[in-house]
Amino acid sequence: MLNITLPDGSLRQLPDGASGYDLAASISEGLARNALAVSVNGEVRDLHRPLPDNAQVSILTWNDTAGKSTYWHSSAHLMAEALEALYPGVKLAIGPAIENGFYYDVDLGEGRSISSEDFSEIEKKMLELAKNKSQYIRKEVSKADAIAYFTEKQDPYKLELLENLEDGNITFYTQGGFTDLCRGPHIPDTGTIKAAKLMNVAGAYWRGDEKNKQLTRLYGITFPKAKDLAEYLERLEEAKRRDHRKLGKELKLFAFSEKVGAGLPLWLPKGTALRERLEQFLRKAQVKAGYSPVVTPHIGAKELYVTSGHYEKYGADSFQPIKTPNPGEEFFLKPMNCPHHCEIYKTEPRSYRDLPVRLAEFGTVYRYEQSGELHGLTRVRGFTQDDAHIFCRPDQVKEEFMKVIDIVLYVLKALDFPDFTAQISLRDPENKTKYIGSDENWVKAETAIQEAALEKGLNTVTEYGEAAFYGPKLDFMVRDAIGRRWQLGTIQVDYNLPERFDLEYTAADNSKQRPVMIHRAPFGSLERFVAVLIEHCGGNFPLWLTPEQFIVLPISDKYSDYAYQVKAQLEQHDLRGTVDGRDERIGRKIRDAEMGKIPYLLVVGEKEAQDNIISVRKHGEGDLGSMPLEAFVKSVQSQMVEAM
Amino acid sequence: MLNITLPDGSLRQLPDGASGYDLAASISEGLARNALAVSVNGEVRDLHRPLPDNAQVSILTWNDTAGKSTYWHSSAHLMAEALEALYPGVKLAIGPAIENGFYYDVDLGEGRSISSEDFSEIEKKMLELAKNKSQYIRKEVSKADAIAYFTEKQDPYKLELLENLEDGNITFYTQGGFTDLCRGPHIPDTGTIKAAKLMNVAGAYWRGDEKNKQLTRLYGITFPKAKDLAEYLERLEEAKRRDHRKLGKELKLFAFSEKVGAGLPLWLPKGTALRERLEQFLRKAQVKAGYSPVVTPHIGAKELYVTSGHYEKYGADSFQPIKTPNPGEEFFLKPMNCPHHCEIYKTEPRSYRDLPVRLAEFGTVYRYEQSGELHGLTRVRGFTQDDAHIFCRPDQVKEEFMKVIDIVLYVLKALDFPDFTAQISLRDPENKTKYIGSDENWVKAETAIQEAALEKGLNTVTEYGEAAFYGPKLDFMVRDAIGRRWQLGTIQVDYNLPERFDLEYTAADNSKQRPVMIHRAPFGSLERFVAVLIEHCGGNFPLWLTPEQFIVLPISDKYSDYAYQVKAQLEQHDLRGTVDGRDERIGRKIRDAEMGKIPYLLVVGEKEAQDNIISVRKHGEGDLGSMPLEAFVKSVQSQMVEAM
Repeated sequence: MLNITLPDGSLRQLPDGASGYDLAASISEGLARNALAVSVNGEVRDLHRPLPDNAQVSILTWNDTAGKSTYWHSSAHLMAEALEALYPGVKLAIGPAIENGFYYDVDLGEGRSISSEDFSEIEKKMLELAKNKSQYIRKEVSKADAIAYFTEKQDPYKLELLENLEDGNITFYTQGGFTDLCRGPHIPDTGTIKAAKLMNVAGAYWRGDEKNKQLTRLYGITFPKAKDLAEYLERLEEAKRRDHRKLGKELKLFAFSEKVGAGLPLWLPKGTALRERLEQFLRKAQVKAGYSPVVTPHIGAKELYVTSGHYEKYGADSFQPIKTPNPGEEFFLKPMNCPHHCEIYKTEPRSYRDLPVRLAEFGTVYRYEQSGELHGLTRVRGFTQDDAHIFCRPDQVKEEFMKVIDIVLYVLKALDFPDFTAQISLRDPENKTKYIGSDENWVKAETAIQEAALEKGLNTVTEYGEAAFYGPKLDFMVRDAIGRRWQLGTIQVDYNLPERFDLEYTAADNSKQRPVMIHRAPFGSLERFVAVLIEHCGGNFPLWLTPEQFIVLPISDKYSDYAYQVKAQLEQHDLRGTVDGRDERIGRKIRDAEMGKIPYLLVVGEKEAQDNIISVRKHGEGDLGSMPLEAFVKSVQSQMVEAM
Repeated sequence: MLNITLPDGSLRQLPDGASGYDLAASISEGLARNALAVSVNGEVRDLHRPLPDNAQVSILTWNDTAGKSTYWHSSAHLMAEALEALYPGVKLAIGPAIENGFYYDVDLGEGRSISSEDFSEIEKKMLELAKNKSQYIRKEVSKADAIAYFTEKQDPYKLELLENLEDGNITFYTQGGFTDLCRGPHIPDTGTIKAAKLMNVAGAYWRGDEKNKQLTRLYGITFPKAKDLAEYLERLEEAKRRDHRKLGKELKLFAFSEKVGAGLPLWLPKGTALRERLEQFLRKAQVKAGYSPVVTPHIGAKELYVTSGHYEKYGADSFQPIKTPNPGEEFFLKPMNCPHHCEIYKTEPRSYRDLPVRLAEFGTVYRYEQSGELHGLTRVRGFTQDDAHIFCRPDQVKEEFMKVIDIVLYVLKALDFPDFTAQISLRDPENKTKYIGSDENWVKAETAIQEAALEKGLNTVTEYGEAAFYGPKLDFMVRDAIGRRWQLGTIQVDYNLPERFDLEYTAADNSKQRPVMIHRAPFGSLERFVAVLIEHCGGNFPLWLTPEQFIVLPISDKYSDYAYQVKAQLEQHDLRGTVDGRDERIGRKIRDAEMGKIPYLLVVGEKEAQDNIISVRKHGEGDLGSMPLEAFVKSVQSQMVEAM
């Protein structure tokens, strides 16, 4: 009998030789039907392989990341099979699953190429082959046999891959008429692949080395239902419409300039207003929570980074040091704010009664990224962290953690991100020596984080071995309006920098003790957060945040005075907006204001001026009718209070 | 007859051969008595030299910078005479006047030195010699005679100086038994030197070259009245007490760290609060005046500075370029914000109707300074300019200038700097070719500045030839509470950058035109401004600005609850403060709060808690008695309203 532990901790006994499929079938018929693979002690395996005894097992379906990934990897094999059928003699390199779908790098041979016009033929062939419900059959082969097979097949890429594999460790997978050198795992058969779409074709060097031959990389994606594909494509279209680079330009939020440099955003007036409002919002919450804002320079001397340990990590792929007329003097653009804050902590002696000290800074940092990796505001070379460092006693970690969680929850609520999980990253319990800090402090901190998350009622995922070498952490993984996941807020315990900077406080018994340091950034960076926010709300920012809450549109020049009166009155109620005083038709004014995604369009003409009212149009919703100013103010204010 | 024009434009006739003294005597007996030298067509000369015909002449007294400077230069000669008497064989190098007093570099000879203990003997000798009322007698000498004189006197330094002088251009000055090689001018005689003080002794290399011999530099200062000296020394003491480096540390406003780097201030929580309040104050005023805040990175690619023209000026004495993994790619720490703002201007087409565009940024810039030149916050390597650039049409320059003046006046009033003049720097009318921009635009801009200053009723000084090559400017020269002058706000017209960045707007006739750019910074830099402000108010900041307006001091732990109630109530009226909840005696709490220069100390004990009142002590003034909270709030608020 096999003793199997399920994810919920329950135990299940199965006959020797039982597979993951048998386990799934023993749980429910539906699970067996949907099962794609199985996780055995954390390792993903084929569903039909026999299970070992005393294992932790979970059944993987389309709803698991690892299940999807296995499905797409199998789909890459299916695409390869289709390509062999359509392009006889094609040589295959590698074909992994990726975040959304898969790709295969192939060598089509002299004179042949694939363009997007060929995609539908390949898709058709894939689905035709999938209908055969061919099983993915795993076979262990000797290195000699494997070499013989690919020598006969004349596939130089697989032969080169084989060079680095150890005999006894080599497996083939075969489905239908196609066999690939592959570590697996795979889904049971091709029958679940019901929809396929080739997404893109690109060049890719063999092994990523531009000295090697350029291959053809074909990107594809597959789904168990045609409807899923349609939804996926619609989501892609929606993502394009919401692309923050596009909206950032249209709404005049930010720009890039070649002369200033790639990856260095210029915040235009409207973007600056948005950004400053976000800063102000968080600053207020932080001051209320006992944080002390500080300001530090954007460079630091070499000695600072030698102390922090970052100096050794500066490499040829970083911004290089800034030399000065003084030989030997070197400064670095700061890649993070923590070393500067450690130096502020050291400006005066601290007692246990002074802790926690919470230093906050909207600190702009610079990190070099390859120009090919830059992407709008999400991947930049200069960005502003909503950074803070909490220096506290070990016994304060839990309380401080809870307070930081409160701030993150406040941010997520105000910015309308209701869907998130907290990922707790702890030590690898098998490998405690690779972490710095005492075991006692680690236990204290890990317990503190877990308890804090529990008490705050967070939906958590715990990852062992994902902690940094200097401390455990908690990341907020947020799902946006179109289902994409982003890592936003992060909270991180650090035992390393207090040690390296020799930070101290005087304990109640007069002994010198090391404070614990907590790094935290609810937004992460203003740049990335604004990008995510733009895409999340499609440029329709929460009312309290949006640069212009209203625009007054006089029907003609005659009502311009009244329009400015309306604006002035609304400003007295702390609402923000402008008057479109241009000599344009009202239709044009409305269209432009809608394009600018201004929430409220207040049309004023003769009737409005006479009765001292406004005609209100809401962005995306249309006419709300006319009303007195006070009614409008009340409605807008109540919406904003609710959001916070 | 000589025709002489006086500073007020009036004409005066004097007999041929008349001197400056004769002119002064013809005006008033008092002026003649106080006259120290004379300015003839802008050149300072001895009072008793004959005047040329048709000259612009003004009589210089102690109240003129040039008068003081002449007086101190003559005092250096007097000190040299005293030194020759006390240290026979002393060799003399150079002895100029400086901003406050004078120095003389001397070679005392092997085995002799001067320390501060010797100062009083030298001072005594100087005053003893001064009493002789020896005249400073000017004599033109041939180079040969001059060389013969100093050869006999065995003074190698004067002989070396003579090497570079042209025959026919050499003068000696003699007073009493002392003769010096000197261009002059000098005061009439030593009789006006009534008080003398040696300030310091230091080493100084001959001709500033460390390969040369080290000489002894003796600093001194003299005054026409003993009372003036006493006041000067008191002012020096007062300046020491107000030194922003000392107060900055005591009030925990800012700090420096060797590891972060010299000249790179760390703003501590209280300093940050102060700084942010200053920013917020100006930001509000600027938004009201139609400015648009923007945010730009702290670095810029080489190409940006090639375009702006700064690239050629980066030299070995600057922060060196930041290289990257991409060969040929170079970034620079930004030394100013204007090039970035030009790039923002270029992000969209501008029409004449869109102008002025006013881009504002609290932009932190970095400029390398030699470590020896660094001084607290007044001379740093990184500082934040309260910068803005106004892009306007040529016909808007005057109006924009007036608006900027309004902001500067608002700042100076709110921060209690009532004493200032506006220095207008115009082209050198004799040398128009060294300026860029059309003559028409220059005339327009210079007229605009002068008219704007006039209409705003500013007390102005006009300096010809002091304009930058790219445009005229206006600087606010502010006198602080102890009489020192600081250049604060600056407004600068620029024709150069719009040209270099090819900035345009579409005029009403559809033609493309260049905007004019105005640079302006009312504070100059936050760092320097805060330094000046600290020294101006001696750390007693204006109530609206100070980090903590009140501190509640419970007499004992029993009244701690009431103390926190008081704080909460005051915070509801937008007042800022803390509670000193320490277990300390009330005397100690009061002393510490006074040291922290907190304006209001609110003492609470049994009586206060019972009657719901507070006992108010004002910093530096003492007990104001007890009063209900509302009375206190009213009094504080009315003070703040008055200040703005």
